[in-house]
Amino acid sequence: MTGKNLKRLRLEMEKEGVDIYVMTLADYHMSEYVGDYFKEIEYISGFTGTNATLIVTGDEAGLWTDGRYFIQAREQMAGSGVKLYEMGTEGVPTSEEFIESHLSEGKVLAFDGRLFSYSWYEKIEKKADEKDADIRTDINLLDAFFKERKPLPAEPVFILEEKYAGKSVKDKLTDLRAKMTEYGADAHLLTSLYDIAWLLNLRGNDIPSVPVFMSYLYITQDSCLLYAQAQSFDVRTLEYLNENGVRLLGYDSIYSDLRKINEKSILIDPDVVNSELVNELPSSVTLIRQQNPTLLMKAVKNATEIKNTEEMHIDDGLAVTRFIYWLKHSIGKEEITEMSASDKLLEFRQAADDFIEVSFDTISAYKENAALMHYEPGHDHEVELKPEGMLLVDSGGHYYRGTTDITRTIVLGPVSEKEKKAYTQTLRSHLRLMKAKFPKGACGANLDILARGPMWDLGLDYRCGTGHGVGHILNVHEGPNTFRWNVKNDEARTELQPGMITTDEPGLYYEGEFGIRIESELLCVEDEKTEYGQFYSFKDLTYCPIDLDAVIPDMLTQYERQALNAYHADVYETLAPRLPKEEAAWLKEATRAI
Amino acid sequence: MTGKNLKRLRLEMEKEGVDIYVMTLADYHMSEYVGDYFKEIEYISGFTGTNATLIVTGDEAGLWTDGRYFIQAREQMAGSGVKLYEMGTEGVPTSEEFIESHLSEGKVLAFDGRLFSYSWYEKIEKKADEKDADIRTDINLLDAFFKERKPLPAEPVFILEEKYAGKSVKDKLTDLRAKMTEYGADAHLLTSLYDIAWLLNLRGNDIPSVPVFMSYLYITQDSCLLYAQAQSFDVRTLEYLNENGVRLLGYDSIYSDLRKINEKSILIDPDVVNSELVNELPSSVTLIRQQNPTLLMKAVKNATEIKNTEEMHIDDGLAVTRFIYWLKHSIGKEEITEMSASDKLLEFRQAADDFIEVSFDTISAYKENAALMHYEPGHDHEVELKPEGMLLVDSGGHYYRGTTDITRTIVLGPVSEKEKKAYTQTLRSHLRLMKAKFPKGACGANLDILARGPMWDLGLDYRCGTGHGVGHILNVHEGPNTFRWNVKNDEARTELQPGMITTDEPGLYYEGEFGIRIESELLCVEDEKTEYGQFYSFKDLTYCPIDLDAVIPDMLTQYERQALNAYHADVYETLAPRLPKEEAAWLKEATRAI
Repeated sequence: MTGKNLKRLRLEMEKEGVDIYVMTLADYHMSEYVGDYFKEIEYISGFTGTNATLIVTGDEAGLWTDGRYFIQAREQMAGSGVKLYEMGTEGVPTSEEFIESHLSEGKVLAFDGRLFSYSWYEKIEKKADEKDADIRTDINLLDAFFKERKPLPAEPVFILEEKYAGKSVKDKLTDLRAKMTEYGADAHLLTSLYDIAWLLNLRGNDIPSVPVFMSYLYITQDSCLLYAQAQSFDVRTLEYLNENGVRLLGYDSIYSDLRKINEKSILIDPDVVNSELVNELPSSVTLIRQQNPTLLMKAVKNATEIKNTEEMHIDDGLAVTRFIYWLKHSIGKEEITEMSASDKLLEFRQAADDFIEVSFDTISAYKENAALMHYEPGHDHEVELKPEGMLLVDSGGHYYRGTTDITRTIVLGPVSEKEKKAYTQTLRSHLRLMKAKFPKGACGANLDILARGPMWDLGLDYRCGTGHGVGHILNVHEGPNTFRWNVKNDEARTELQPGMITTDEPGLYYEGEFGIRIESELLCVEDEKTEYGQFYSFKDLTYCPIDLDAVIPDMLTQYERQALNAYHADVYETLAPRLPKEEAAWLKEATRAI
Repeated sequence: MTGKNLKRLRLEMEKEGVDIYVMTLADYHMSEYVGDYFKEIEYISGFTGTNATLIVTGDEAGLWTDGRYFIQAREQMAGSGVKLYEMGTEGVPTSEEFIESHLSEGKVLAFDGRLFSYSWYEKIEKKADEKDADIRTDINLLDAFFKERKPLPAEPVFILEEKYAGKSVKDKLTDLRAKMTEYGADAHLLTSLYDIAWLLNLRGNDIPSVPVFMSYLYITQDSCLLYAQAQSFDVRTLEYLNENGVRLLGYDSIYSDLRKINEKSILIDPDVVNSELVNELPSSVTLIRQQNPTLLMKAVKNATEIKNTEEMHIDDGLAVTRFIYWLKHSIGKEEITEMSASDKLLEFRQAADDFIEVSFDTISAYKENAALMHYEPGHDHEVELKPEGMLLVDSGGHYYRGTTDITRTIVLGPVSEKEKKAYTQTLRSHLRLMKAKFPKGACGANLDILARGPMWDLGLDYRCGTGHGVGHILNVHEGPNTFRWNVKNDEARTELQPGMITTDEPGLYYEGEFGIRIESELLCVEDEKTEYGQFYSFKDLTYCPIDLDAVIPDMLTQYERQALNAYHADVYETLAPRLPKEEAAWLKEATRAI
C-alpha cells in the first residue's frame, strides 16, 4: 500500500528524471523545530517527529528517525508505504549508507539544497562523485503538488531588553568580532536562528514555542547585515537595528548577495549553514570552518540570565507543583483527559506575570502513551485519566526571565511493582547525575554513566541523551553542552562550564505498558578548588516534588536517599511559603524524608 | 647553579649557532621505554622518568613531565639548573607554547629529527614558519661530548611460536594488507617496535623489559622489507623470515631507501613515525595518515593469547600472594629492604617454567616513597622496611604465555586512620570500575568516572590515567584502550572490545607521607544482549588478595562490599589448592568476607 502523496512525489521524480529524492525535516537554518511551511515529511509519510529523513526511490521509501520516535513512527506510518529505519540500532543502515548503496553511474540524486547542511552535502557529493552519479540541489519536487503548504511565517519581532538579556548587542558583537579575528576571518555568515536572536537581543514568533524569526546574518568588522522579512519589524525595532549598526535587507536576497561579496575568508559552521548558501559563494573565498562562536557564548549564561532564571524556576516549579496537587486531588472526582490536564497546567503557569508561552508542546502521556517518548496528546486522540497508573508530564515555559523544561511522572492511583521499580531506578539515575562533582575539563560524555550506570547494570537503557542544554527564551534544546556518552563529535566533548544549564532526564520506557521520566535542570557552578584543580558541581534549578508514591526506599543507596531528602527539603522550604495552606500541608507530606 | 653537561650543551649550541635546542626521551620509534643509548635527558638533567622533554636556550632550561613524576623530577633535578614544568597543571605553559614564545625572526631551533614524531615536527615547523625562524633537524648536539653514551643495542631475536602467538604471520599480513587496500595505500611504513614484533611473531631484547628489537618495516602488497641489525638474527630466524616472505635489510638503510621508492601512497601514523623518515620521502608521495592498523589488531587479544594469559595470571598471582605471605611473616624478624623485597618477589615469579623477565622495573616503595608514583628502589638509596606502615609493590612479568602488571599495597604493621581511609577510598574506586557493565560502543573516557567519582566527591584525584592496555610479551603499557577521562585524541575514544585487556589502577598519593595503589588487569568480555544492545563487562584476570588490614568496612557501600567479597572468594578458590597448607590457611583469613 502506498500513500497518495508518496505516489504524487514519484510522478514528479519521473517527470524530472530523478532516481533518488531525499527530504529532511529542517528549515533553511537547520532548526530543530520548524514552522509548518517545512512539514514536507509529514505530508508524504504521516510522521510528525522532530527528527526525520525520508528517502524515496522508484520502488522504495524509507524514513530514518531516532529512538525517541520508533514507536510513534511505526504507528503514524502504518499503511503509508514508508519503511522505518531505526537510527542507532545494530544492523540498520544509515541514511547515507542507503543513498550510497543506491547510487550508480548516471543515476540522478536530488534534494532541496537549502534544507541540508553544507557538511552533509559534501559527504553526499563525494559519494555521488565516486559513483559517477549526478546531483541536483536547485529543486523542490513538492512545490508542484504540495498545495496545502502553509505560508512562510513572518510574525512580529520584539526587543529583549537588557534587564533580561544581560548584555548589550554591542558587547556581544565586539566579542564575536574578536573571535573572527582570532580565526582570521574577514566575514562571518551566521544562519542559526537561535544565535541571531541571541546576538541581536531580539525575539520573534516564527517557530511555535521557539521565539525566533526567519533571518540570516552577515557580519564583517564594520558591518552587520540582517536578511529578514521586513513585515516583521515595526518602527521601534527598525530604530533599534539602526542604533546597533545593523542593516536590514530582504530575507531571500542573501543568496544573490553572497555571489558578490568582496571578503576573502568567511567563518561558517558547515554543520549549520545550508549548502545552497555556501555554493553561492565566489570560488575564491576561503572557508574557515568552525563551530559558530555564538554557540558557546550563549550556552554560558551571564549573571543576569542566571539570576532571572533562578527566580523564574521558583514560579515555574510552583505552577507544576500546584498542578500535581490539583491532579491528585481531582482525579476520579471530575473528568480529566491528557489534554485537559495539559490545559490546566498552562493555567497555573500563566499565573506568572511574565509568562510568554510554552517552551514546547506539552507531553501529557497516560500509562502506555508515556512509552512513546515524545507523545503529544491531541483533541482527536486524547485519553481520559483514571485513578490508577501514572501520567508523565514533560512541559516548560518561556518567561521574560528565561525558559524551563521539567518532567514529573505522577502517580494517579494504584501502580504495579514493575512500575515502582522502574520509577525508583529512574530516580537513582536522576539523583546520581544531579550530585556529580567533577574537575574543570570534564564533559558530558564523562558524566553520562553516572545516570546510565545503574540501568546498564540491569541491561536497561533509554534511547536518547540524558540531558541537553536549555536555550534562554530560545530553543528549549540547545548545544553544545549535553550529557551523552555515545556522541563522538566535538560538541559532545564540550567542557562543562559554570553558567551552563543542562537537563537531567533519564527514563525507562516499556512499549505498550508505561513510561517514566524524571527531569530537572542543572546549573553548573563552581565547587571547591583543591590541589587537584577547580571542581564544579550542579545546582538543581527545578523546584517540584518527585512522587514518593512510586519510590521503593530500599532500592535507594544511602547516598541516593540523602540526595533525595535534601532535594525535597529544599523544595518544601522554597515553595511552601508561596502555597495556600492546604497545599503547603500536602507538600510537607509529599517531600517528607524517607 | 648549572650542571656540567648542560654547560657543555650550551657550548655546542653556541658553536653551531643554535638558539633553542629541544630533546625528548624517545628512540627512533617513539617507544615509551628506551635503550640506554637514548638517555640524553638523564645525562643533561639527572631526571630518569619515562616521560620527558627538555628545552635549552642560552639562559633557560626547562623539563616537561607528567604528574606521575613531579615529585621525583624535583628531587632528581635539584641543582641541575633545569626548571620543572608540570604538564597538565593550570597556568603552566606546554613545551610547544614555550618554544613558540621563544621563536622569533632569524632564531635557530634545532633537534634530532629522528627522535620526534612527524606530527610534532609539523606543529613546530608551522610555528617556526609563522615567526620566520629556522629549523635544523639533521643534528644531534650531544654527539660531540656524550662520550659515555651506551652503544645501540642489538640483542638476539627469537621466534614466538604460534602456540603462544595464536595467529600466523601470514594471516596477520593478510589482514594488514586488506586494511592498506581499504585506506588506498600502496605501501605502509611501520616503525613501532611493538607492532613489528607482534606482526612478525618475533621478539628481541633491545629495550629492558620490553622484548622488542630495533627495526623498521616497509610493506607493500607483495613485499615486506625488515630493516634491522643483521647481528640480531641467527640461521633459524633468518630462515623464518625467508619462509614468511620477509626480506632483511640494514637498520639504517631505510633512510636512503625511502628516497627511492616507487609507491605513490604510503600509510603512516604521523604520531609514531619519526620526522626524518617522512622528510626523506619523495615529494610526489601521498601520505595516508591513519593510526597504525596493527595497534587495534594487537590490542584485541586472540583466543590463544587470552587462554594463555588467563592461566599465566594464576601463576603470577600465586607468586605475588606468596610474596605477601612471606613479607608479612618475615617483617621484623629478618632484615628486608625495598630492594631485597623486590628480589624476593622475582624469585617467586621465577617458579613458573616459562617466566622470561620482569615486564618493567619493580616499584617497591615504602611509606613516603610510595607517594612518588614511579619510584624505583636502587642499591644506592634503598630503605629498610619495618613492621609499620605500608609497602607499595607494582610489578609484573613477561612469560611465554603473556605479560602481567599488578599492584598491591601491603600493610606491614600499624597504619594510621588517614592511611586506612585513603586505602579504602582507593579500593572503592578500584571495585567500581571492575564491576562496570556497559553497552558496545563505550570507551574508557565514558567509564573513568566510575573510578574517579568517589575521589572527586572529596576533592581528591590522581595525576595519571586509571588504566592502560597491556601488551602481550611487548610493552606492558599499550594503546589504544585506556581509562582516561581527559584525553581528547582518537585513542581515548577507542571503543572497548572483548579481548582487550586494560589495567584498573586508581591510587592516592600524599607527598612526604604515603602512597596507595591497587591494580588488577581487566579483560573485556561479552555480557548479556538485551533489546538495548550487546553489553560488555570485565573479567578480573588478577588473583591476589587486597589487604583487609587497611580496609574500613563501613566506608564501603553494600555494592562495593559484595564486589570485594566475591573477588576474594574467587582468589581463595583459585589459589588455595596451589599453596602450602599454612599459606592456604593464611589466605583464607586474608580473603574472608567482610
